[in-house]
Order: sequence, then structure tokens, then C-alpha cells
Amino acid sequence: MILEESKMMEQKIILGHGSGGRLTQELVHDLFCKHLGEAGPSSLDDGAVLDFPKGKLVYTTDSYVVSPLEFPGGDIGTLCVAGTVNDLAVMGAKPLWLSLGVILEAGLPFQTLEKIVQSIAQTARKAGVQIVCGDTKVVEHGKGDGIYINTSGVGVLTQSLAEETIMPGDQVVISGTIGDHGMTLLTLRKGFEVEADLKSDCAPLNHLIEDVLSEVNVKWMRDPTRGGVATALNELTDGKVWGVLLQEGTLPFSEPVRGLEELLGLDPLYSANEGKVLMVVPAAEAEQALDLLGGAAAVIGEVTADHAGKLVLNTTMNTLRTLGVLTSDPLPRIC
Amino acid sequence: MILEESKMMEQKIILGHGSGGRLTQELVHDLFCKHLGEAGPSSLDDGAVLDFPKGKLVYTTDSYVVSPLEFPGGDIGTLCVAGTVNDLAVMGAKPLWLSLGVILEAGLPFQTLEKIVQSIAQTARKAGVQIVCGDTKVVEHGKGDGIYINTSGVGVLTQSLAEETIMPGDQVVISGTIGDHGMTLLTLRKGFEVEADLKSDCAPLNHLIEDVLSEVNVKWMRDPTRGGVATALNELTDGKVWGVLLQEGTLPFSEPVRGLEELLGLDPLYSANEGKVLMVVPAAEAEQALDLLGGAAAVIGEVTADHAGKLVLNTTMNTLRTLGVLTSDPLPRIC
Repeated sequence: MILEESKMMEQKIILGHGSGGRLTQELVHDLFCKHLGEAGPSSLDDGAVLDFPKGKLVYTTDSYVVSPLEFPGGDIGTLCVAGTVNDLAVMGAKPLWLSLGVILEAGLPFQTLEKIVQSIAQTARKAGVQIVCGDTKVVEHGKGDGIYINTSGVGVLTQSLAEETIMPGDQVVISGTIGDHGMTLLTLRKGFEVEADLKSDCAPLNHLIEDVLSEVNVKWMRDPTRGGVATALNELTDGKVWGVLLQEGTLPFSEPVRGLEELLGLDPLYSANEGKVLMVVPAAEAEQALDLLGGAAAVIGEVTADHAGKLVLNTTMNTLRTLGVLTSDPLPRIC
Repeated sequence: MILEESKMMEQKIILGHGSGGRLTQELVHDLFCKHLGEAGPSSLDDGAVLDFPKGKLVYTTDSYVVSPLEFPGGDIGTLCVAGTVNDLAVMGAKPLWLSLGVILEAGLPFQTLEKIVQSIAQTARKAGVQIVCGDTKVVEHGKGDGIYINTSGVGVLTQSLAEETIMPGDQVVISGTIGDHGMTLLTLRKGFEVEADLKSDCAPLNHLIEDVLSEVNVKWMRDPTRGGVATALNELTDGKVWGVLLQEGTLPFSEPVRGLEELLGLDPLYSANEGKVLMVVPAAEAEQALDLLGGAAAVIGEVTADHAGKLVLNTTMNTLRTLGVLTSDPLPRIC
């Protein structure tokens, strides 16, 4: 047994692991099913038969191509569960089931894959979701980048958000510090030394969101991933008769992100978050939302009758700056 | 307008198309949504809110990494819809909704992508399924192979198959000729000249399967994709107290597949099919199943009290040969 395990640690993925033959079966059984345990599928069949509860079904999909595969605060396994769980949660759904489609590059060490599958299992348990079906493909070395993962997700709608009731005076709340995931990846990729306390915020938010929804009349929610807080809030204001005014002085940043911002002149408002939620709530309920969100949660702005259709930043120097949509992104493959 | 279209035809995918910013929005709107039309999502949101009908939910996922992207009889777009639709249909489900996750390699010509999206739209319409949510990522040139696609699928169970009632005497039926998809890909990849009439059988089978299920007591179904008919039937017999005996003389092959088999000494029983279904039916209902399946459908063997747990071929020379599970596959990336 010890011999077998050490053999496995030296092994690498080969094309045959994607053949659908015995090697695929062994990989799925010995690695995926072993680590996923009760968070994994009940059989090795292609699909799952499930009892859907009463209510509307919410369905989403996301592919993860993050580079590097591992980063302070998580890895592609953490990300592919948290990301899809969060997409469901911000739509007002209770996440139930995920599908897991992996595309492996030949040459990927078993040990790397094993660590990623462990992260998947751990994050699924934390979120209380089950991975009910999966698929494994292998491409030649040089036709991928270690591993790409697609997770789709199914949930049941527990609360419809009334975006159409948003009005001037409503408050914009964020659940914690801004830009940690994107800044962590940027630091790694540019080869800067990562500060000890800079790490991705990658985490499933469904339980936290459920707590807030049970007490507060949340009108709109979004997880500000690719493109960050500024992009998410542009999606909110686009085409509306009102605008959003952010107060720069209230934006919560972790110390290392603030340092990087000053050093590099980069705007963390466009930097990805993978464990934060933006909410629009009535002014009278903002304090309660902050209490429930805890930690570094903050009111960062409000809906205004001015600036129709726009996101505007009131800087600490008391000047107004419109924050538009980026055409592209300075940092590809952050999720 | 003509200028814009000709400009688009010259364009290639760049990393910015995966940024989540304006370029991503334009790609999704101008290419995906335009071609998918009513077979596509009703909004550009991350997910969809849907009314699930009464019944059990069936959920599946598959990633498609076929090389080359286009082949006689279809392309990766046809495949990614047909494959996932067929996975749902052989579980006894009516396919309802698909998710679509694409990983594009920078440098992919827009024209190629447009053709693939057209195939997705066409195949979805044929199958009567809707693509309700999607995601687009872009990786650097040299970190992919044009396009990889994941489609997950949700359906509602219309008929539970009673695999536990299978008994000696039951007949094994296939809906048409064997091995066409795999042999087409093999021929292309090895650089052989493809015979004019050799093409992939890639097609959605849900309507055909629905017709058979409404009349015939089907006990087991499988779409024999990766690993072909022999692999699918090994999954059926594995661990059972009965076996399956195939009659070589009854196996339906298209002329070009038979020619390639003789020329190359390859066994089309292990060659992938992407538009065929294997069924186990009671002997008394086999004729009716063939009538409903039409075309080249054939009884190719039967469940036997002998050969417990095994798939055995009775050759045209009247000798018995056990067909086992391949460890790997001689031809990677056929789906």
C-alpha cells in the first residue's frame, strides 16, 4: 500500500486517462470518488437522477482557467466550487448540485490533481453542495495548461430580488475588503514577492448570503469577480434612470492591497474578488446588513437621482470620476 | 454593414474576449446570442431561472475536446449538443436545458467560431433543447487547441429503465451502423483520404428514443461513444450473473467502415459512435423496436445464461472470442 501510494505520487496524467477505458475508470474511482466521498456522486454513471424540491430552478455554468493553478488562499479546485456556488447564491438560490467537467493536460502530476480534488471536496462540504456528475478528458501536453475545470450548478430559488424597486437613497454594501483575489494573482504572475498577508478571498458565500436574505430586503446582489466591483456596478447602473455614487474614503482594502495600489497605480475597484458580495439595500436596513455580514463589511456608496446610468466615484479629494467598463482586462486568466 | 462583416471574418479571438469586459459582452451578444436565437438564453445574465416540471431531475455533463474541430458529418458544435442530449435521453429523460461553457484559444478565427455556434444552434433546434446559460474564457495561444466546450444538461425523467429485470433471452439491439464517428476521425487524423461516403453519425437521438420508449419495454440503453459498442456492453455485463453473446454476422457496418476494418485491422466494435443507441429489449418486442428505429437497426446479440459477466463474440467462423475493456484507447480526443 505504501509502495502503491508512492508510485501514484510519481505518476502523471497520460492520454489514456481520457480514453473512457479502464484507466479513466481507475482515475475517477481512485482519485475523484475517493476524495469527494459523500460530497461526490453516488455512482460512476454519466449522469444523476435527483429529486428537485418545490420552487424555481436556477442554473449556471462557469469554466475555470486560472493561472497559476495554486495561489495563496486557494487553488483552481477551491475556485471552481466557490465561483459557481456564489453565482447561484447571488441569484437568490440555494445551491444544491454541481457538475464537474475536467480537461487535463497530459503530463499533469497526479499529486497536483489530487490536491485540487481535495480542495474541491473541502469547498463542496463547506458550501453544503454535492457534486453529482462528472466528466474527464485529457489533451496532449502543450494543448492545455495543467487543468481546466467547468462546473455547472443547479439550485432552487429561495428569494426573488426586486431590482425594479431600487431607488435613490438605497445603499451599496460590500461584504469585505476589495480586490484581494485579483491583486494576489497579479503579484504572483508578475513575479513580485507576495506579502505574507496578501491572499485570495476565494470562498463560498451561500451561507452568509442566506443569513442576510432572511433578515434584510436585498434588492440586488452580485459577486464582483472578473472586472471587479466597478464592472459589477456598471452592470447595475447600465440603462437606468438613476446612478451609483461611491465614496472613495469608505472603500475597504486590506493593507497589502492598499500598498500595491500605491506602488503600481492599479485600481483594485477593477480587480477580481472571489469571496465577496455586493448588495443594494434600503438605507434603513444597511446597518443590519453590515451586522450580519460582519468583519470588514462596509457601505461604500448609494443610489443617486443624479448620474443616471453611471457609476461615479467621489474621491478623497472631493472630485467626481466616472468609472466605466473596461474594454479588456490588464490581467487575463484570473479565474 | 458589409464592411463590418468582412472585418469580423478577418478577426481572431484575443485574450480580451475572455476578460468579462466589453469585448466579452460583444462576443456573447454579436456571435453567440445572434446565432442561437430562440435556442439561446433569454438574457446575458450568468444564470437562468427556470420552471422545472413535475418529475425527477436528470443532470449530466460532458466536455468536448475533439480534434479536428470539423469533420465530415459535423463539428465540435454538433457534437457538444448531440452528446449531452444523448446522455440524458439514454437515462430515460426528456432533455430540457443545456449550459454552454467555451474555452477559446487566442488566435481562433471568428469565422471558425461562428460556424461552430451555428452548428450548436442548429443541433439544439433539432433536439428541441434550449441553451439557457453560458460562459466564455480565453487562454493564450498554445495553451489550448482552438476551442474546448463543456455542455451540461438537465432533463426530466420520463421513464425509469428496469435494468434489474434483464434475463437470458433478452435481445441486444443497435439503432444503426457501428463505428462511423470513430472511423471518420481516425481516417482524418492519420491523413488517409476519406472515402466520399464515410462520415460521422453525430446526431441527437432524443426524439427517436422517445418514440421507442412509448411502445417498447426497454430495459437498458446506452449511447456507445468513447470505447464503442464493446465498452458499453462491458459496462452492462460487468458483475452480472448473465452474459451477452454478439453474433458477428449480424453487426451492421457502413461500406467504408467495413473497408477500413479490413484494410487496417481495426475493430469498429471499439470505435466511437455519436448518433447510435444500444438497447436491451424482451425478445417478443425486438421486431417492434427495429421497426421504430428504422434504417440499419439490427438485433446484434442476446443476453445469455452462459458467459456470466462477460461480453462474447460469436465470429463468422463460429468461434467464441471474449471482448474485454480496453485499458486505453488507440485514438484520443474523438469527442
